[in-house]
Amino acid sequence: MMRSSVRRKLLLFLTIALVFGVFLAAQQENVPAKTPNIVIFFIDDLGYGDLSAYGALGYKTPNLDKMAAEGTRFTNFMAAQAVCSASRAALLTGCYPNRLGLSGALGPESKIGLNPDEETIAEVVKQKGYATGIFGKWHLGSKEDFLPLQQGFDEYYGIPYSHDMWPLHPFQARAKYPPLYWINGNQQDQPIRDLEDASQLTPRITGKAVEFIRRNKNKPFFLYIPHPLPHVPLAASSKFKGKSERGIFGDVLMELDWSVGEIMKELNAQGLDNNTLVIFTSDNGPWLNYGDHAGSSGGFREGKGTSFEGGQREPCIMRWPGVVPAGRVCNKLLSTLDILPTVAKLTGAKLPGKKIDGIPFVDLLRGDESKNPRESFLYYYRKNSLEAVRKHNWKLVFEHPGRMYEGQLPGKNGQPGAAPEDHLYPKALYNLTRDPGERYNVLEQNPEIVAELEQIAEAAREDLGDDLQKRTGKNVREAGRVND
Amino acid sequence: MMRSSVRRKLLLFLTIALVFGVFLAAQQENVPAKTPNIVIFFIDDLGYGDLSAYGALGYKTPNLDKMAAEGTRFTNFMAAQAVCSASRAALLTGCYPNRLGLSGALGPESKIGLNPDEETIAEVVKQKGYATGIFGKWHLGSKEDFLPLQQGFDEYYGIPYSHDMWPLHPFQARAKYPPLYWINGNQQDQPIRDLEDASQLTPRITGKAVEFIRRNKNKPFFLYIPHPLPHVPLAASSKFKGKSERGIFGDVLMELDWSVGEIMKELNAQGLDNNTLVIFTSDNGPWLNYGDHAGSSGGFREGKGTSFEGGQREPCIMRWPGVVPAGRVCNKLLSTLDILPTVAKLTGAKLPGKKIDGIPFVDLLRGDESKNPRESFLYYYRKNSLEAVRKHNWKLVFEHPGRMYEGQLPGKNGQPGAAPEDHLYPKALYNLTRDPGERYNVLEQNPEIVAELEQIAEAAREDLGDDLQKRTGKNVREAGRVND
Repeated sequence: MMRSSVRRKLLLFLTIALVFGVFLAAQQENVPAKTPNIVIFFIDDLGYGDLSAYGALGYKTPNLDKMAAEGTRFTNFMAAQAVCSASRAALLTGCYPNRLGLSGALGPESKIGLNPDEETIAEVVKQKGYATGIFGKWHLGSKEDFLPLQQGFDEYYGIPYSHDMWPLHPFQARAKYPPLYWINGNQQDQPIRDLEDASQLTPRITGKAVEFIRRNKNKPFFLYIPHPLPHVPLAASSKFKGKSERGIFGDVLMELDWSVGEIMKELNAQGLDNNTLVIFTSDNGPWLNYGDHAGSSGGFREGKGTSFEGGQREPCIMRWPGVVPAGRVCNKLLSTLDILPTVAKLTGAKLPGKKIDGIPFVDLLRGDESKNPRESFLYYYRKNSLEAVRKHNWKLVFEHPGRMYEGQLPGKNGQPGAAPEDHLYPKALYNLTRDPGERYNVLEQNPEIVAELEQIAEAAREDLGDDLQKRTGKNVREAGRVND
Repeated sequence: MMRSSVRRKLLLFLTIALVFGVFLAAQQENVPAKTPNIVIFFIDDLGYGDLSAYGALGYKTPNLDKMAAEGTRFTNFMAAQAVCSASRAALLTGCYPNRLGLSGALGPESKIGLNPDEETIAEVVKQKGYATGIFGKWHLGSKEDFLPLQQGFDEYYGIPYSHDMWPLHPFQARAKYPPLYWINGNQQDQPIRDLEDASQLTPRITGKAVEFIRRNKNKPFFLYIPHPLPHVPLAASSKFKGKSERGIFGDVLMELDWSVGEIMKELNAQGLDNNTLVIFTSDNGPWLNYGDHAGSSGGFREGKGTSFEGGQREPCIMRWPGVVPAGRVCNKLLSTLDILPTVAKLTGAKLPGKKIDGIPFVDLLRGDESKNPRESFLYYYRKNSLEAVRKHNWKLVFEHPGRMYEGQLPGKNGQPGAAPEDHLYPKALYNLTRDPGERYNVLEQNPEIVAELEQIAEAAREDLGDDLQKRTGKNVREAGRVND
């Protein structure tokens, strides 16, 4: 009796010590004790105003509303560049795309891609034995050397680049595109020949992602779902076609919302809810030139292809029950750049050996808003042009040539409007607290703030170069790490 | 035993019948069985982007975030006109202000006010024995005949008009204003001589409102809290001054959020949470000319004093636990006009005898989004100018002269920028689903939609007139119901 009681007491003591130790360790590291699964939805050309929770009209996104109610909705979350390949490279590596020597949207025949020497989120979590899968659009090089299996992913099913880069492109005379195929691992799969085939993009990708969760429910996993829609050409499956009051764009959004719901349902069915961080965001703002087939920037200026907020400010929702506070709105400045180091911290993995630009935001994720993980942000565009810098609420825009869709007649029914000429935007200072629409230039009233932002820009130019300044005469390939 | 068991069964049957009967009755009327208390916060010059839940930067509004998480946040909620007195008249009567013969912001010496023959929300609920109180800014006539006690309110403590209409107005040469006083019922109370006095606006109004709840906890009540801030001149009490990263504007917003928290705390303490509908919205958008002392339209075009969305689209949150769904975002078109008929329906009171423009939205409030209570909205401005009409997501703007702050240097540190000249805005059609910023004129692409909106405008002109058209030669006084 005595000895059994002593043993029980000892066991109780050890248990308490262990629990307390784990608790303390978790506290010190500021990370939860158990490493979570990571799911990232990266939607294509989705604008800030395109979800119900961000004010969308003409359709509802109930699964994303639910995700926001159960998690945290961000309002100052930035894509790293307002165009497809560059933005994807930044998300996966935590680097400004010009640091990687990548810009714009790679064409089907491009000989370059994301340098396999760069370390992606998939490679980071591989250190910790995560299963890794990508289902959707890659767009970081379509030659085999650059495909996802060579970048840390165990599995890939999706398309190699945007699905308007196909023989049905509206400018056939300008761009002769080869046939588009699904890719399975490193192998070419079925063709995507028409809108009927394209209407299977969202359901097929969703199905593959659900299967991946089922197969990997017993080990930690990283699931990356870069849906190719609502990038043009728009297509929805028969279940959603004609269902919204907003035409095909609304139908597509309803189907994407359904996709999120399916993933959430599967996580729940497998008992993984409380052990999975789900992140939902977009690669860049709406492609305004496509008019009724484009999304909405929610009132922000311009869209995709510009460094105004409409091009880079994205809807972003994160959910992890028990860790990420529910029903919260977080207005702190963050970027897709910050996801890789945050995932590294959460999983206990090492950061990549090369310099990155992301900043971990684990405390903020858990609801501690006492600090700003990210103080500033660089708006690089084109190959290597520093078009603007932001610090907290202040954004200094440098004189630069850029697209201006405003004032132009946009396209309709899937046809683009006229290609806009470059407009020379003047140097301007915007206070994003009172002027998120970037309409009231207060440069002359705030010389100290301009000076502070100029310093940030100077440091960025030292580090990454700046074609706008013609300071070095170097192009981005030379300024960034060589990528091919 | 037998008889007792029969009695028990009979009692059970009667109870079920009663509960079911009440349930059925409530279903048929589409109103909850118990009539709620009504609390309306009507904030002054608050922009769409000025709450955390709508993306505000540099300060937090945690009590309003909580209110949104526990209730429904609206994203297409319209003030009836983009200026103070007109907007307040519309809220309280459910009528477009030009129907009442009211426009603009009444001056301190104005001989007119809201016609006492008009029926306000206070008068509507008085039919049902509600206690009614207003604590804050009235601005519907400062002569005694027009004060709140003559419009259905049992109690009034507040200011009679905007607190920039005082001897410290920045344009002293242009406007000689008399001293400003608090009003208690119909009596002049203490003076508001300087910013120190003005810093007591929010706390004093809050205190009076809390007392009102305490005194009336045992009967139904209507509590109207039209806070005078963040209208300029800005002032925060010592508890909040200097506390935000957004200067005095942020401090003021933090104090207004505190005020909401105090009211919520009192409702909870009195056990009234589940029996009180709380509505929070604003009279018009931000007064952009005041620069860093103005709010943010969240990216919508222009602000106060214009019929663009920045002038009239308002943040709006409604909370009524158990009735209004929690954590919901509702993107349906609604207006302050619709509050009076909704309150009438909820309380079982009769509508005013004269024609009103509001549409009840009880089903929508309870979460049924299958119908659109409001199909269209009229953007009247100035005395009686129909500047735009909206149907669902489409807004047709007519050629009209209007303010344009955009491109002008705004004011700073409480001083306004230069008064903007009128700009002649051209006729334009905007699709607010993809273009909530009103930047992409798609008039020439959509002749059928333009025709449909023209019909709505024609019907409005028949009903209310239109100075822009010079159709009748009548001014608004003749077009509307006479108000003095």
